[in-house]
Amino acid sequence: MPALSARFSLAAAMLAILPGAGAHAQQAPAADVAWNLVQDLTTQIGPRPAGSPAEARAREWAAARLKSLGFQNVAIEPFAMRAYRRGVDKAELIGFAAQPLAITALGYSGATSEAGITAPLVYFPTLAALEAAPAGSLAGKIAFIDHAMVPTQDGSGYGPYGDVRRKGPGLAQARGALGVVIRSVGTDKHRNPHTGVISWPQGIKPIPAGAVSNPDADQIARLATTGQPLRLHLTLTGQIIDNAPSGNVVADLPGRDPSLPVVLVACHLDSWDLGTGAIDDGAGCAIVTAAALRAQAGGALRTIRVLFAGSEEVGGFGGEAYARKHAGEPHALAMESDFGADRVWRMTTNFAPAADAVKARLAAALNPLGIVARDGTVEGGEDVGAIIAAQKLPVIDLNQDGTHYFDLHHTPDDTLDKIDPAALAQNVEAWTRVLAIVANQAGPIAAQ
Amino acid sequence: MPALSARFSLAAAMLAILPGAGAHAQQAPAADVAWNLVQDLTTQIGPRPAGSPAEARAREWAAARLKSLGFQNVAIEPFAMRAYRRGVDKAELIGFAAQPLAITALGYSGATSEAGITAPLVYFPTLAALEAAPAGSLAGKIAFIDHAMVPTQDGSGYGPYGDVRRKGPGLAQARGALGVVIRSVGTDKHRNPHTGVISWPQGIKPIPAGAVSNPDADQIARLATTGQPLRLHLTLTGQIIDNAPSGNVVADLPGRDPSLPVVLVACHLDSWDLGTGAIDDGAGCAIVTAAALRAQAGGALRTIRVLFAGSEEVGGFGGEAYARKHAGEPHALAMESDFGADRVWRMTTNFAPAADAVKARLAAALNPLGIVARDGTVEGGEDVGAIIAAQKLPVIDLNQDGTHYFDLHHTPDDTLDKIDPAALAQNVEAWTRVLAIVANQAGPIAAQ
Repeated sequence: MPALSARFSLAAAMLAILPGAGAHAQQAPAADVAWNLVQDLTTQIGPRPAGSPAEARAREWAAARLKSLGFQNVAIEPFAMRAYRRGVDKAELIGFAAQPLAITALGYSGATSEAGITAPLVYFPTLAALEAAPAGSLAGKIAFIDHAMVPTQDGSGYGPYGDVRRKGPGLAQARGALGVVIRSVGTDKHRNPHTGVISWPQGIKPIPAGAVSNPDADQIARLATTGQPLRLHLTLTGQIIDNAPSGNVVADLPGRDPSLPVVLVACHLDSWDLGTGAIDDGAGCAIVTAAALRAQAGGALRTIRVLFAGSEEVGGFGGEAYARKHAGEPHALAMESDFGADRVWRMTTNFAPAADAVKARLAAALNPLGIVARDGTVEGGEDVGAIIAAQKLPVIDLNQDGTHYFDLHHTPDDTLDKIDPAALAQNVEAWTRVLAIVANQAGPIAAQ
Repeated sequence: MPALSARFSLAAAMLAILPGAGAHAQQAPAADVAWNLVQDLTTQIGPRPAGSPAEARAREWAAARLKSLGFQNVAIEPFAMRAYRRGVDKAELIGFAAQPLAITALGYSGATSEAGITAPLVYFPTLAALEAAPAGSLAGKIAFIDHAMVPTQDGSGYGPYGDVRRKGPGLAQARGALGVVIRSVGTDKHRNPHTGVISWPQGIKPIPAGAVSNPDADQIARLATTGQPLRLHLTLTGQIIDNAPSGNVVADLPGRDPSLPVVLVACHLDSWDLGTGAIDDGAGCAIVTAAALRAQAGGALRTIRVLFAGSEEVGGFGGEAYARKHAGEPHALAMESDFGADRVWRMTTNFAPAADAVKARLAAALNPLGIVARDGTVEGGEDVGAIIAAQKLPVIDLNQDGTHYFDLHHTPDDTLDKIDPAALAQNVEAWTRVLAIVANQAGPIAAQ
């Protein structure tokens, strides 16, 4: 791809994102599509929780911006979902070691009254220790679940340690607990707790469930070693809202042959409410949009479609709505960017052997950017998972470096300043190279 | 000092503070006096704002702990002061770019009603720009004051940029502002705003005054460039409390000659309420206490007195109370540790030429620890400033590295995990070497 390499070289991309003069604010020239998208989304809309008025404003903003960038068939596709609206989040130890704790409610937490609840706090060092507790043993108590998540480049800690948040509240409820508090599923040492969604078992009545920051969890762990009884006053007044309005934004860059299945690239537009959703997932929308424009700039064979999904954070409602609405349309391949804004370090594909030649071209295009290729289990992404499963699509994961991702994930600290413009540009360049190949591929790419 | 060097070598100190096995919690052997002091104070008491019940519990805890460590004449010396009790702190942009902001009230802020105030937000890039605004020009408005503080090793940015917090609110009030919000006086990029005290001009009626985190200030700075009018809804309901109870804790390690003036080493026991006061100033109390014990372990000539001052953060009330109560007692020298827990990199003294030999011995003792000596303007410290001024005392500043201090200062992030045990041990070792010299100095050390 000599013409492509010349037009979209990494050096040119780097030049386009030299930081501005401000001591604090990072800036980039107006020409930088990706930076401007994530900057404006996170600054002018800010937090945009699933099912909220702010998420609706984000859809209108996104549709207008995509049109102004030259996208066609720009559509807002509404759907209804179950939302969580934050209330007052407070926790304080009382009696021995009385002090406030930095806490956030988890998504779909049960609610306390405004006066809160007060109960003994029972320390479990692991999720397994909680599972081993007998039925009824937590009656009248609040469970605290600790864990030992550490950073990994591929983010693999989010599976097992993330279960503390996903499954821990249900396990505590099943053992009679009045409430549950977990160590944040995160790897930083700041007083910013990590929120995220709970997977309640069907038919269960949610109990109040929150996460404290890692320094607060350290505090509880140290206090648990003293043998003194701990008591917690917990106030979490957020509410579950049925039939909240959400929606997807879908837009195309038409290819030269509209009869060919589209290449789908996705991100999600909603964010948790605590931060401004810069790395989760404003950056993803910025990357796929900028790369689609560059890959299509010279006129590609296939249509590239962007999906800015709604309501990803609370259960992937947008991805499911997309798969339902577009079930009748064939798709060539699906990709998603939803793991922050750090550099791509690996490509993972699920291609059948018949597509080895395409895979080799992709690997050769990415190699100069420091990206290694492998076969393996693809992630796809929450917003493309349903359409991938329904149509058995080929997938290319451009794996981003997750070493620092869980320092910021679902916290108030997910803000624009955490994005490194050079790493964002590397993402756009990698995505551009991949899309230029797959959108110009005449025949189908077979999935395994 | 061969005997001292052998007993308290840095290598031994390092061995004593090898981190424990916990993935998150830092631990040290029970023998480590300094670590245990700051750990227990920050864990079992936690935040201890000036004039609060928690500060009173900290005094009782400190007196008991000092007695158990072998200190004598342990006394709690009460005084009354003007306190600030935090209420609800909230800020949100409304209309264009509607979103919540991470804010903290500043100490002695005026209060809004529970409903808050709503007004246009006027952006000033610097304190000088606010000063240049005409009288009355801020009527009905909220001023936002930006600044450009960056890290420095000696902490010298805290003078000029700290004035945004100290003087900015008074300047805004004098120009008719309804309220004032500043960029936090801090150098981090986390959503943890930095509180701290305001110096209102005499006779002024305080207006509501808060600080937003640096990412929020970046957001306001970017929005100010759009030309769109900004409106802020600000709720700060904290109250100023007159005649709140506070106090100092004073304790001695008697020397062989009780007739000689004492060596005074100080820290402060109160902390801001947002964090647990680990680096400000639990670490300082831990350092001076552990070093005093080591320096006195072999039996020194002079009494070493520790002062854990109360109510430093809101105006140095403890230091003033100490100077009043102990005005009749001669002091040999005063030192304070109140700049975090990072390593000592420099010694600054105000000795007269007659004390050149002592200074040379101090410099030689500190040189192996990577500490340079200089003459210069000494800081002393807020808790020893009044007695130094009253008695024209010699002062030794052991300057700590402040490069990262203002990332944490006065924020929720001032917690135990931010202390590096090796750096804490280096502090104790440096203080031990200095105290062993000055507490065994028979004649007076003359100040300049």
